[in-house]
Amino acid sequence: MQPIMTAAEINAFLDTDFPQIHTDGRVFHVAEVTAGRVTMTFDPAERHLRPGGTVSGPAMFTLADVAAYAAVLAHIGPVALAFTTNLNINFLRLPKAQLIRCECRVLKLGKRLAVVDALLLQGDSDDPVAQATATYSIPPR
Amino acid sequence: MQPIMTAAEINAFLDTDFPQIHTDGRVFHVAEVTAGRVTMTFDPAERHLRPGGTVSGPAMFTLADVAAYAAVLAHIGPVALAFTTNLNINFLRLPKAQLIRCECRVLKLGKRLAVVDALLLQGDSDDPVAQATATYSIPPR
Amino acid sequence: MQPIMTAAEINAFLDTDFPQIHTDGRVFHVAEVTAGRVTMTFDPAERHLRPGGTVSGPAMFTLADVAAYAAVLAHIGPVALAFTTNLNINFLRLPKAQLIRCECRVLKLGKRLAVVDALLLQGDSDDPVAQATATYSIPPR
Amino acid sequence: MQPIMTAAEINAFLDTDFPQIHTDGRVFHVAEVTAGRVTMTFDPAERHLRPGGTVSGPAMFTLADVAAYAAVLAHIGPVALAFTTNLNINFLRLPKAQLIRCECRVLKLGKRLAVVDALLLQGDSDDPVAQATATYSIPPR
Repeated sequence: MQPIMTAAEINAFLDTDFPQIHTDGRVFHVAEVTAGRVTMTFDPAERHLRPGGTVSGPAMFTLADVAAYAAVLAHIGPVALAFTTNLNINFLRLPKAQLIRCECRVLKLGKRLAVVDALLLQGDSDDPVAQATATYSIPPR
Repeated sequence: MQPIMTAAEINAFLDTDFPQIHTDGRVFHVAEVTAGRVTMTFDPAERHLRPGGTVSGPAMFTLADVAAYAAVLAHIGPVALAFTTNLNINFLRLPKAQLIRCECRVLKLGKRLAVVDALLLQGDSDDPVAQATATYSIPPR
Repeated sequence: MQPIMTAAEINAFLDTDFPQIHTDGRVFHVAEVTAGRVTMTFDPAERHLRPGGTVSGPAMFTLADVAAYAAVLAHIGPVALAFTTNLNINFLRLPKAQLIRCECRVLKLGKRLAVVDALLLQGDSDDPVAQATATYSIPPR
Repeated sequence: MQPIMTAAEINAFLDTDFPQIHTDGRVFHVAEVTAGRVTMTFDPAERHLRPGGTVSGPAMFTLADVAAYAAVLAHIGPVALAFTTNLNINFLRLPKAQLIRCECRVLKLGKRLAVVDALLLQGDSDDPVAQATATYSIPPR
């Protein structure tokens, strides 16, 4: 499974076709694309934080969804019409109020469905703050 | 399974203990509480909408999570420390850019875990726009 | 959403096209079909039981999967090629070593995907022993 | 996260405390235990196969559940009372009628809950036939 878009190309596509993800500022950024894998970073803004110095659940859901979508795009090209059909997320540890890295792996890229695993990590720790699996419906090409 | 908080009491508790859910205006509202069940409404603001006149996935995730949490609160009382451990959501149909009703049913209320089913509906249709199942960890009481 | 097969027709189709579900005897039986809904019963055999007088997790998974599949068949007709793409199951209470009823509701019946909710119940209790949500890929018709 | 049981010790514990997993012969076998990880193999018997030369969904569910449970045991010791609360499985590709390897990673090992990721693989391929995430409730120690 080889990517057909670079990190810069995906970032540019998200800017033009999904400007809504930048509503709270440019917090999402595709950092790396390799075979079957995409890493996105999320730099939480004030509105994503919660009392106790942590990051909200909806913000982590959004990161997993946007990052996994970017992982699909990287391998099928700029198709605006793929959409999420299912997302299962496990919240594992309270994140710190700082950057979260979402490491995605495309588990399956079929004609109709793509399934992506996403691990949310912080700093040097190998212990994920959350894990998600997302399924996308891919339009006929 | 009998509720021990009214809709008004849960709304007041969310106001004081979870003001962050009102960051975008008062869009979430507990409408009804009965045995094992809570209905919450969500009146989407501009930022929750998407091109094509629909509601964003993260907004639907947030509704399911807040509503299911309210359903747990309704039956265990105002415990600020319950937290989501897992949420599985199926996006079934594109919602219209209008009010969404989230009908929750508490499937299990154990000492340590609660599991809630949530159906997201619009208008008079019986066809849900999304369905979620959420698990909450309940602190020792 | 109207069914196009009766309970008897689905049972006959499962007999001829999925004889493997009867490997342990005739334990699965479609009991009722109504608009958007199918109920299947499961009468556990010795091999499905566990020490302590309960039913095994894999047996409950199989019931949810076969029943939800029957619910899809009921509404699309005898298509042998639909297959499960995702199944999320919550184990809620230890079942007793006796008959389990699986009440299924078709949440979505699309051209490519069907999503079914399944509740596993015993006796007169409204408290489910398990809940599952299953997604099926439907072949082009 | 360091394991406190060897592969041989887990296999012996499963033999004595969960003999039911050997109902169909000795098909499950813990092959390797390292920090945070356990690999189990499953050698399907006749009853786990399906027409077309593939392995049944319930057999893959059982493998994921038993392997993830073994991964928890490896790190908490021989506690017979841990039980599955949730299992989410994605069926990605039709497996061949041959040995399946289940590679598990413990994502979280808390006081009350453990979450394990499981990838089901065959032969030399990196493309998984299924992926599961399982949650276990851990009894007070």
